[in-house]
Amino acid sequence: MKVGLDVGGTKTDAVAVRDDGQIAGRVRLATGWGPDAVARTVVDAVTALADSIGIERSTIGSIGVGMPGQVEPGTTRVVHAVNLGVDELDLAAAVEPELGVPVRVENDVKAAALGAYALHSGATSMAYLNLGTGVAAGIVMNGQLWRGAFGTAGEVGHISVDPNGPLCRCGQHGCIEALAGGGAIAERWARAGALPVRDVFDAADAGDAQARILRDGLASGVAAAVRVLVLTADVDTVVLGGGITALADRLMADVAAELAASAAASPFMRSLRLDGRVELLPVGSPAAALGAALIGAARDPEEALAHG
Amino acid sequence: MKVGLDVGGTKTDAVAVRDDGQIAGRVRLATGWGPDAVARTVVDAVTALADSIGIERSTIGSIGVGMPGQVEPGTTRVVHAVNLGVDELDLAAAVEPELGVPVRVENDVKAAALGAYALHSGATSMAYLNLGTGVAAGIVMNGQLWRGAFGTAGEVGHISVDPNGPLCRCGQHGCIEALAGGGAIAERWARAGALPVRDVFDAADAGDAQARILRDGLASGVAAAVRVLVLTADVDTVVLGGGITALADRLMADVAAELAASAAASPFMRSLRLDGRVELLPVGSPAAALGAALIGAARDPEEALAHG
Repeated sequence: MKVGLDVGGTKTDAVAVRDDGQIAGRVRLATGWGPDAVARTVVDAVTALADSIGIERSTIGSIGVGMPGQVEPGTTRVVHAVNLGVDELDLAAAVEPELGVPVRVENDVKAAALGAYALHSGATSMAYLNLGTGVAAGIVMNGQLWRGAFGTAGEVGHISVDPNGPLCRCGQHGCIEALAGGGAIAERWARAGALPVRDVFDAADAGDAQARILRDGLASGVAAAVRVLVLTADVDTVVLGGGITALADRLMADVAAELAASAAASPFMRSLRLDGRVELLPVGSPAAALGAALIGAARDPEEALAHG
Repeated sequence: MKVGLDVGGTKTDAVAVRDDGQIAGRVRLATGWGPDAVARTVVDAVTALADSIGIERSTIGSIGVGMPGQVEPGTTRVVHAVNLGVDELDLAAAVEPELGVPVRVENDVKAAALGAYALHSGATSMAYLNLGTGVAAGIVMNGQLWRGAFGTAGEVGHISVDPNGPLCRCGQHGCIEALAGGGAIAERWARAGALPVRDVFDAADAGDAQARILRDGLASGVAAAVRVLVLTADVDTVVLGGGITALADRLMADVAAELAASAAASPFMRSLRLDGRVELLPVGSPAAALGAALIGAARDPEEALAHG
């Protein structure tokens, strides 16, 4: 049995995966704040998962953990996971002594990409585009996660697509993330509310001019990311996931309209059939935790295969 | 012995490659115009190459040919090679009966990418960015050419980086190719001259305002392509080649200045060390013909390995 965890800013999703690839159990817990509480959450989630399917924790073969922030290649050290209150944490060092099971750590977007690929039938290559506070993608080619030379593959959020666009917190103007990142949209909207991007959509529907600009920017940023991913890596499928995709059909309608506009203007863009390549990750999908489980169980972490 | 040809708009470069990867001979011929003359050029180049190293043509093990235009995946059919006067040509059908050696065909930019990778020591992943009439890249990862799901991997020329930029012949605005393509620059410059991009550089140096805009646009388009390739595929090296790179240091100085400006504005961009990843393909490099030879000799064309 292999276990995978997706440690998110509010909740942690844990799955147990049988050798045949089927999910045997799943639990969700609130995520603690700060390095110690995050490590505690990981131990608690594994314990609860083992209990829920009636196995001893020690019989788990491997644990993979997807986390926001930067994971130093080849290590289990996470840095700058700001949404978790973690500046630096060696997760394996913190939890392996208690769990007694080998732990691997991967960036959550990369883990979700591998999991989305494993859950998808038919894709030979896929980009998973995460639309959350920030924007980043994970790319899977022939079942293999493409990490790149220095681990920045898929960082499409910081590609500028408009030199006169809004200032990005990275310092450039018109980055895809400055247009389509939930954090950037909330900052520019600058009104109180639990779900600022949803508020922007509602206000745009009600005719608010600033909301319309922000909503249009979101759609054009997502469409730009899709174009970048297809024109550079030529993945056959782009799966959208992350918090903003809770807007589901409203978001997809805007993105489809953007892609249709460029297809109408350009026979070349039309030939790429971008609209048919974009899909939404289903709400509640265990993709990220499943991908983490696959990474945890891979013989060689650089060769983590999605199937088998 | 394997043979590789790079069939360009004006000349055809042919190399003979020994089993140990060393180049045993090289000839260059003027390229004919139209399908029949192009096929004739291929036969003549192979014949001249065999003569030059004193071998029988029939002892050649394989022939790979890089050509501009679209090569239908898995076939030897080239379409829309406008610079060769070729609307459609099945090259293997045209030349194999006379040559008696199996022929494979690949897009010239993809072939050059594989050849540039083979000639480079130290790169684990590389994008070859061709700056010619158009702009396109070939991506090599771990020695393997990344073709993508539908053969459009590396088509970064048609990523828009400025919604208010110049109209591209593809129908979009502000495409990288509309800024950095030799064809687009010549069209906007609209003055007679054998080397319009060089003329633009000279006129910009002399203070011509329009030339300065075009020259700045070229540098910003190339820098944008480098950013897209590194942020999406995270290749460790981007090699620039193609006709425009004859401008060598003048072009590289402009591109370096563009990359330095974004590094100065953004700590994130600075961390990518883009300036250190960009290199110029040496003038007269046999990369494209060598890459074609490697593709011609690969056991499985989808698995063409650059080394060995």
